[in-house]
Amino acid sequence: MALVVQKYGGTSVGDPTRIRSVAQHVAKTIREGNQVVVVVSAMGKSTDELLRLANEVSPTRPPRETDMLLTAGERISMALVCMALTDVDVKAASFTGSQAGIMTDADHTKAKILEIRPHRIREALDDGITPVIAGFQGVSYEGNITTLGRGGSDVTAVAIAAALGADVCEIYTDVTGVYSADPRVVPLARRLDRVSFDEMLEMAATGGRVLMLRSVEFARRHDVPLHVRSSFTWESGTWIVEEDISMEEAVVSAVTDDTSEAKITVAGVPDRPGVAAKLFRELANRGINLDMIVQNTNDNVTTDISFTVPKDDLEAARETCDKVRGDLGATSVTTDDNVGRVTIVGAGMKSNVGITAKMFETLADHNINIEMISTSSIRISCVVRADRVNEAVRVLHTAFGLDVIAS
Amino acid sequence: MALVVQKYGGTSVGDPTRIRSVAQHVAKTIREGNQVVVVVSAMGKSTDELLRLANEVSPTRPPRETDMLLTAGERISMALVCMALTDVDVKAASFTGSQAGIMTDADHTKAKILEIRPHRIREALDDGITPVIAGFQGVSYEGNITTLGRGGSDVTAVAIAAALGADVCEIYTDVTGVYSADPRVVPLARRLDRVSFDEMLEMAATGGRVLMLRSVEFARRHDVPLHVRSSFTWESGTWIVEEDISMEEAVVSAVTDDTSEAKITVAGVPDRPGVAAKLFRELANRGINLDMIVQNTNDNVTTDISFTVPKDDLEAARETCDKVRGDLGATSVTTDDNVGRVTIVGAGMKSNVGITAKMFETLADHNINIEMISTSSIRISCVVRADRVNEAVRVLHTAFGLDVIAS
Repeated sequence: MALVVQKYGGTSVGDPTRIRSVAQHVAKTIREGNQVVVVVSAMGKSTDELLRLANEVSPTRPPRETDMLLTAGERISMALVCMALTDVDVKAASFTGSQAGIMTDADHTKAKILEIRPHRIREALDDGITPVIAGFQGVSYEGNITTLGRGGSDVTAVAIAAALGADVCEIYTDVTGVYSADPRVVPLARRLDRVSFDEMLEMAATGGRVLMLRSVEFARRHDVPLHVRSSFTWESGTWIVEEDISMEEAVVSAVTDDTSEAKITVAGVPDRPGVAAKLFRELANRGINLDMIVQNTNDNVTTDISFTVPKDDLEAARETCDKVRGDLGATSVTTDDNVGRVTIVGAGMKSNVGITAKMFETLADHNINIEMISTSSIRISCVVRADRVNEAVRVLHTAFGLDVIAS
Repeated sequence: MALVVQKYGGTSVGDPTRIRSVAQHVAKTIREGNQVVVVVSAMGKSTDELLRLANEVSPTRPPRETDMLLTAGERISMALVCMALTDVDVKAASFTGSQAGIMTDADHTKAKILEIRPHRIREALDDGITPVIAGFQGVSYEGNITTLGRGGSDVTAVAIAAALGADVCEIYTDVTGVYSADPRVVPLARRLDRVSFDEMLEMAATGGRVLMLRSVEFARRHDVPLHVRSSFTWESGTWIVEEDISMEEAVVSAVTDDTSEAKITVAGVPDRPGVAAKLFRELANRGINLDMIVQNTNDNVTTDISFTVPKDDLEAARETCDKVRGDLGATSVTTDDNVGRVTIVGAGMKSNVGITAKMFETLADHNINIEMISTSSIRISCVVRADRVNEAVRVLHTAFGLDVIAS
């Protein structure tokens, strides 16, 4: 008997019909001889609606109260899922984050899970009751209700799966799995049957939209196999698992794209130790997340430092750079929000040479200029003009043999 | 410094504008030198909407999950009230029933409060924070979320007021107080400045719609002064207090009406000890609440037993009577759902004779036939034809000098 954690996102429980469909699937999973723990998000757009309501009430939003407000969403969806389960003869009971023992820090609206105390969930399972747990929410040690921020329901599911030693954590969503590229950009993108945690991490970090980085990191750290699949077709999707030596690795598994970031260049920085550190310390103090960082020294006297930041942080980052420019002795600060990033990811890169060359050649063949490059052992990212990103993804997808062959 | 518990019903927090208005009033009460504890219901029709949603999902509604679902309502309203309070510079924090220490039995959807453990509320007050508590909800000793049934938010407010030793429990609603009759029936009805607990109990039991019996009973038992008032006009309303010997009692304070019940008559019952008991035991076993019970023996051989039940229970009550009719030796069971009750209530009745006669004469003068009578020391109820109830209320209201004199 396997223990399966099934997480259903907002679209999967978006209306009464979908909720009944979820209940049928849980019942089927149980009939097949499994124990199931369900984790749910709030229904569809209900979180947005609650925030809109809050906006009408007050421009002031104490984070503690924002959390209290938003956690109403999962409360509704999980109670409805339990009703639908009871209706198909599955004994079920809902549990808030607090009741499920999801202990977090007190950082409202973006709390981190510190510990899971799953004794009520275990008791329910022992009693033949299917627990339906509110995703996205927890409770601080002071007894205040917290939320886990974006992608929090996935984190809840993975954390519960880890705490219970589940055999798999199934993430049900409105897509059928993880694809070799965004199917809206690459019509010939293929669904991947199997991706390693490392690959998934790189994909999530570089624009893959199916899973958030946090939940993948958590799953890898606790070695919880993930299975991303559709609650609309119920077909088998993509497994995300520990890399297996026997796995025949694709050289390149996926091509991702991201146009959510902007580029900043601080030019003419004296090439002395500690100068870059000073700049990045200031940016960190402002809470600005840097992504790609590239530094090139041309003449051993000055250097240009470029990096990318989320577009929302661009103004704050530019201000910070302007402020420290004099101290650094830099000549100029320029920004560019018309850039995009294209990335190839593949565990097989580690043991294959020539991948970088092939990527650059492919882009050059299509006259796409590369402005920044960064690499890891299983990833190569290039910053290009924003209006060339989609083309870059398509040509790389073809060049690395990822296109689905029309049958 | 007085400690004031303010309870705001669904219409009082029905939309963002009303919520801001509530926040202003709380802030004003605090500026006047009081400590305030707020208790809120769910916004307007949100409970109905949640039940409608549940209905679309499943005909099966486990009570535990119904409670989980419905308690989302106060969660939303209390978080929004806290945001609005923060916006007018009142430090506020919301507390679920569980966080406020409202311990109940495990009787889902109609739980009873067994104990209040208000240490978090006290701490908040000590820290200069205005607690905003979810009405209607509590938690069982097993840690399951419960709701208190109809009128539950008032019960929460009274219970919190009792536990904290508050000076007053203010019940804010969409009417300006308790009236000498339903103003929709009697345009000349007057607002009562002061009503005793006993009178209020009789009024609540006989059709008064402002307060539920439970909360008045709770307030009387714990001697919590109630002040029923409007959150639309904010004017002073009706105080419900322990009877004061020095109070100059009105002979009759109010006339109430109720057409929610039906009458059942079991005729030709042998007039022997234990026969009526057998009938009422059967009805109690079916969970049917009886109200007025009248028995008349005509000939010392058989007797007719009549009683009223809520119309919703009429079918079940009739079935039960039919089932035991043979055992009882009764000749017939008849039902009549075309009846209504008119009641006069007044603490002054105790020391005044002739009230009953005056009531009967007044009804007779208007050719209104009395079908059943029941009395307490401060109340007389008559069952009449349903289509004569409104007229009966008006003529009694005039006869007992309750009409507002047009100025």
